[in-house]
Amino acid sequence: MGEFELIRNFFAAAPCAQVGEGVALGIGDDCALLDVPFGEQLAISTDTLVAGVHFADPCDPFLLGQRSLAVAASDLAAMGATPLAFTLALTLPAVEADWLEAFARGLNLMAQGCGLRLIGGDTTRGPLCLTLTVFGRVPRGQALTRSAARPGDLLCVGGELGNAAGALPLVLGQRSATPAIAEPLLAHYWSPQPQLALGQALRGKASSALDISDGLLADCGHIALASKVRLLIENDRIPVSLALQEFLGDADAQQAALSGGDDYVLAFTLAAVELPTLLADGWPIHVIGRVVEGQGVGLLDVHGQDITPTIRGYQHFRSE
Amino acid sequence: MGEFELIRNFFAAAPCAQVGEGVALGIGDDCALLDVPFGEQLAISTDTLVAGVHFADPCDPFLLGQRSLAVAASDLAAMGATPLAFTLALTLPAVEADWLEAFARGLNLMAQGCGLRLIGGDTTRGPLCLTLTVFGRVPRGQALTRSAARPGDLLCVGGELGNAAGALPLVLGQRSATPAIAEPLLAHYWSPQPQLALGQALRGKASSALDISDGLLADCGHIALASKVRLLIENDRIPVSLALQEFLGDADAQQAALSGGDDYVLAFTLAAVELPTLLADGWPIHVIGRVVEGQGVGLLDVHGQDITPTIRGYQHFRSE
Repeated sequence: MGEFELIRNFFAAAPCAQVGEGVALGIGDDCALLDVPFGEQLAISTDTLVAGVHFADPCDPFLLGQRSLAVAASDLAAMGATPLAFTLALTLPAVEADWLEAFARGLNLMAQGCGLRLIGGDTTRGPLCLTLTVFGRVPRGQALTRSAARPGDLLCVGGELGNAAGALPLVLGQRSATPAIAEPLLAHYWSPQPQLALGQALRGKASSALDISDGLLADCGHIALASKVRLLIENDRIPVSLALQEFLGDADAQQAALSGGDDYVLAFTLAAVELPTLLADGWPIHVIGRVVEGQGVGLLDVHGQDITPTIRGYQHFRSE
Repeated sequence: MGEFELIRNFFAAAPCAQVGEGVALGIGDDCALLDVPFGEQLAISTDTLVAGVHFADPCDPFLLGQRSLAVAASDLAAMGATPLAFTLALTLPAVEADWLEAFARGLNLMAQGCGLRLIGGDTTRGPLCLTLTVFGRVPRGQALTRSAARPGDLLCVGGELGNAAGALPLVLGQRSATPAIAEPLLAHYWSPQPQLALGQALRGKASSALDISDGLLADCGHIALASKVRLLIENDRIPVSLALQEFLGDADAQQAALSGGDDYVLAFTLAAVELPTLLADGWPIHVIGRVVEGQGVGLLDVHGQDITPTIRGYQHFRSE
């Protein structure tokens, strides 16, 4: 048995790889088999992370395992899907037991937190690179797409923005900060919490949704394009954390919230009538703007003046 | 729009990326959506190919596109699944229009031949590497696994073995051959034909199945282990092509058929009573041995003497 076959067995023994609800056949055969309940559809998303491009190399393998799966699972949240399973394609330059053990621990922790079971994948030798494909289920016709925002809808986000972009100089070792500032920012970067429950709560309520990975302005542009509408964002309503403001100052914190990537917070549109019940249920929803006829994205100051930046979102660490 | 986003749009415009039966939502949202008919299960398999490990670098991008998808689709054949869709995670060192166009052409040709639709993926910058995840559907409980071979069953393969291993010195430029020899061998290597129709015909008939990717002996070992039985192979019944015999000589051709990888021909077990109908229907089935009680794999000569090689299959190009 080759060392890469040993790795496959190692992952197959992970708690998150045990067969359970929805998984008829897991790791070890030519294919895995999933059961999709009658009346539901299967949601599928694939993400690749390359060492030195999407994460620093070397980096902490536990945090990498955790973050990789969170990034992938966030796409299920954005569709309102209930997590089911995932596959892992892991390319490694060499087999290091400590590295693998820590990576698998981080992966397993996030998998169990999200309710995702490892059902297969591939392990190969080569430059460090991961591709995760995640599977969820969603009642037929209720998936949250990007293409049905309507003029008159409110534009909302599910939490504070810019923390991951703010953490980047800390991750890269370019700056330092007190623990009170560094810890929440780094936690957001390394262990983003995919908003799976919020996504499911928005089924049948939100008219469009996505997870913010390219930055608020760029991602709102995706909704505007797909829905053939214009999104207006009120600059002073964008939620920003105290840690980010203290670390970057107000202006740069605002810039990070507008253009920084890797937030993995949901952005969505809904009719105003849907809002009271969702807020009463305690969902963390911030109204930051509205949908109007037209195209593209506009940024408004507190007086309603258009201050849309002419620059595109800066090319951040995760742009390609 | 970045150049990698342009590539995504380029693939989204490919004929194989058009939404059709079973695909409710294709490329362009956070997730794709698949419909799985009532009473069926979803079969899923993931394969990674790394440049310089699983294929020579540089290599012909058209042939790479074609071969990558064939390798992945072969796992659907091995489960008896009907092809549905696939995702492509493509990591590229740089964007070269000619390379991409040729790769997409090869991929598209194989996708349309197999009935697979491109529903999503990721395109990233980094060392050349591909991960394909394929999806098929199979009636609940009828998937062909590795674990139900029974003593008394016949052991069969779906075609000639060893051609891809024989092609390897030609692929690597280590040897040359006349066109009459080189062409069939190279065709088998670069454009393996996943035995999808045969796999579906074996549903409800074969007791176990897989596709031969690691070599006949190694892969029969996988069935033996999963089914807790022993597989006996009659050496002189293994089908080998004339081109391979002429190129390598009888002894090395036999060795390539036993231990060479990348054949992507089905190996399966079935009760003898199932054979006549399948042969009458014209399926290319070669009986090469039988299942007995015990464990592991035995190789028998024409006199029934055990000649099981003590060496393991050599470490071929695609071993990890």
